[in-house]
Amino acid sequence: MNTSLLRTLAGLYFLLTTLSVAAQNKVVVFQSDFGLKDGAVSAMKGVATGVSGDLKLYDLTHEIPAYNIWEAAFRLEQTVPYWPAGTVIVSVVDPGVGTDRKSVVLKTNSGHYIVTPDNGTLTLVARSLGIAAIREIDEAANRRKGSQQSYTFHGRDVYAYTAARLAAGTITFEQVGPELPRNVVSIPYQPAVKEGNTLKGSIAILDVQYGNIWTNISADLFRELQPAYGDILHLTIYHKGKQVYKGDAPYCATFGAVAKGKPLGYLNSLMELSFALNLGSFADTYHIGSGHEWSVTVSITHKK
Amino acid sequence: MNTSLLRTLAGLYFLLTTLSVAAQNKVVVFQSDFGLKDGAVSAMKGVATGVSGDLKLYDLTHEIPAYNIWEAAFRLEQTVPYWPAGTVIVSVVDPGVGTDRKSVVLKTNSGHYIVTPDNGTLTLVARSLGIAAIREIDEAANRRKGSQQSYTFHGRDVYAYTAARLAAGTITFEQVGPELPRNVVSIPYQPAVKEGNTLKGSIAILDVQYGNIWTNISADLFRELQPAYGDILHLTIYHKGKQVYKGDAPYCATFGAVAKGKPLGYLNSLMELSFALNLGSFADTYHIGSGHEWSVTVSITHKK
Amino acid sequence: MNTSLLRTLAGLYFLLTTLSVAAQNKVVVFQSDFGLKDGAVSAMKGVATGVSGDLKLYDLTHEIPAYNIWEAAFRLEQTVPYWPAGTVIVSVVDPGVGTDRKSVVLKTNSGHYIVTPDNGTLTLVARSLGIAAIREIDEAANRRKGSQQSYTFHGRDVYAYTAARLAAGTITFEQVGPELPRNVVSIPYQPAVKEGNTLKGSIAILDVQYGNIWTNISADLFRELQPAYGDILHLTIYHKGKQVYKGDAPYCATFGAVAKGKPLGYLNSLMELSFALNLGSFADTYHIGSGHEWSVTVSITHKK
Repeated sequence: MNTSLLRTLAGLYFLLTTLSVAAQNKVVVFQSDFGLKDGAVSAMKGVATGVSGDLKLYDLTHEIPAYNIWEAAFRLEQTVPYWPAGTVIVSVVDPGVGTDRKSVVLKTNSGHYIVTPDNGTLTLVARSLGIAAIREIDEAANRRKGSQQSYTFHGRDVYAYTAARLAAGTITFEQVGPELPRNVVSIPYQPAVKEGNTLKGSIAILDVQYGNIWTNISADLFRELQPAYGDILHLTIYHKGKQVYKGDAPYCATFGAVAKGKPLGYLNSLMELSFALNLGSFADTYHIGSGHEWSVTVSITHKK
Repeated sequence: MNTSLLRTLAGLYFLLTTLSVAAQNKVVVFQSDFGLKDGAVSAMKGVATGVSGDLKLYDLTHEIPAYNIWEAAFRLEQTVPYWPAGTVIVSVVDPGVGTDRKSVVLKTNSGHYIVTPDNGTLTLVARSLGIAAIREIDEAANRRKGSQQSYTFHGRDVYAYTAARLAAGTITFEQVGPELPRNVVSIPYQPAVKEGNTLKGSIAILDVQYGNIWTNISADLFRELQPAYGDILHLTIYHKGKQVYKGDAPYCATFGAVAKGKPLGYLNSLMELSFALNLGSFADTYHIGSGHEWSVTVSITHKK
Repeated sequence: MNTSLLRTLAGLYFLLTTLSVAAQNKVVVFQSDFGLKDGAVSAMKGVATGVSGDLKLYDLTHEIPAYNIWEAAFRLEQTVPYWPAGTVIVSVVDPGVGTDRKSVVLKTNSGHYIVTPDNGTLTLVARSLGIAAIREIDEAANRRKGSQQSYTFHGRDVYAYTAARLAAGTITFEQVGPELPRNVVSIPYQPAVKEGNTLKGSIAILDVQYGNIWTNISADLFRELQPAYGDILHLTIYHKGKQVYKGDAPYCATFGAVAKGKPLGYLNSLMELSFALNLGSFADTYHIGSGHEWSVTVSITHKK
């Protein structure tokens, strides 16, 4: 094979792999704190369908507690990686609507596009997926026609509209607006660390349907304790620094490994250390919440 | 350019613009009071998918309070305009199922099709979008095969089935059934008016997720008070004619213009006068509801 | 027409009718007890979209009460028949995740595919739609790449992934895994029977949105009482064998046939005998539940 053919093939390969990451895939996924009781989510999808009938429109969740930017950030980190590269995600949890927070599109290193106010919503996903580029939405160009009089529904008139045009290929990422420096507004939170033989971290979120407790302690950090199934985890939970729970739970591969109502530690679907009651709600039973005010310590006793 | 070519182009232009309004776009949007806990909504979408796998099926909301025709009417008015012309919307809030209310398809002047029992659901959208034509569904022709024995799920067997066939182009609008006179069953309600220097109106709906109060006073009517941001609005709320709230709220462009928990007046995404607490719930805090029994008066003091 | 042409046509007809039942239709419908508050459902749809962008992804419900296999079974029986043959349904209500329950795909005689843990979820649909074949999912071949470390989200990594590949035609039904004997794990429950002039049965489910009571007594069995509209039904309800309600209700074609708040008997959309209060909740008013612990007896007095 001659050199010029090789070079052509290499170029083609580069082009294809780049495209496979960069190109939008006509899928838009919506997240908000709007709930499903009124027409707000539907209006966003209507505007997107009006941009292009070829789009496929799905949801992340619309049950983010009102104005809870932390939970919006967590749901993005939890869910975005399972959508294919090229997916455009809209997140509208926007207590500062109408103030001077920027409206942006983040392109992650994984090839996802996230359309959102830059108010902390991108805290976690910017770290875990990486920032390829970030652009401010130019509302002069990227705003639904006839919507200039409305000051309160950017979700529909700017975010859904821009996301749909980007997903459909009506505009390129560059046409979103001017590029910004590669950083985002971030919410401070307690990171997961190992101090001596003890792990420290925070309760990132509750698995609300079941009442399980999901920490931000990764499987990799947890493995530094050299855990084996059946080892006993000593868990302490603090709210604003005050102890509110202390107890032991075996490290298990499956919920069924302990009796009904008994606690266990496990790695959740994000591969982070979590705690649950088998067939019960840990959070309800012990009145545990989540967020940056909730922290944990975990140590271990190996079984004989 | 000669005359006959011009005439041909004009005819073509007319044809295309007419088609763009009239033709169905293979999108069906569902609204109901069924909730999302059982299989009723899914069965409707299954029947629609069985009509044609090319349809795209979306939701308005299924959380209309049971039997609340007023709220169904309001959600349609709020949301339908944001879907493109040619969209078929199904609304099933039907306390009179099995009685003699008519099953109809309304074609609006905006080119939307609304499939629903004619029980008041069309009150607002018939006025705001206009009635191009209205046809009664001929159930002999437009009913899911094998469903004749069931008396209680018209939503699936008649409305979803007819909507899907209309959206897919299996039947034309004319094949829905016989044309009816251009009027719909209407629910009486207090219109928005200006008396002296005071605006009167009703609370059309609560923005349930946030507890904001949306009146039926349009931006155009409100502008007759010559409001400027920072002017003080004097709001009184009545339930069945009895005063239940009286207070002042500045007219603001953004929620962030007042302190947390403080009231403000603003124009909502429908461009109607609304009231809210910044980062709080006006409705919960002051026990305010919505519907034809709830009315308001609003006057203004201009800032110096 | 000669014999060989006839034979060819017959073969073609057989092929076409078989295909119309057997071929997947690129539609996946999801059911779970995950709720809609977090990203779990969205992650399943993301994985499915990553398998093929051509799929159409819909929901049955995600509000199955946590770990309630009976209700999952009922919703499948209620809803699957309304989706066209070839639809792939995923049901993930899985209290035994990580234990030795099998992961299977049931192909029904109606041409539907149901992807689920075999833990009782298939109890009703196996009976009503029939078992064409059942295969165990070979997780070595049918598991999302990179998911081997996670023990707790089979819904996403095995069920959604396998369902999407089956629906998209990436794998055949045979490639799901080894065929199993034609039976499923079943939950015991009281069947509907006629004893003397009395019908016995159980309360299969509540129509949760309205509080109606749906028994498992079919229209065919009910007709053995020779009911006519206006006849009086004598209903008794038992919980764990103890009487908790006794009353009369006319048999009606429509809810509007009785006054507001009054009881009636009717055939629901599944053509099974049901009881309701017109514009009210029978279940809330009389504290009635559903499941195998709730049974009923029904007798009749014919109107004069």
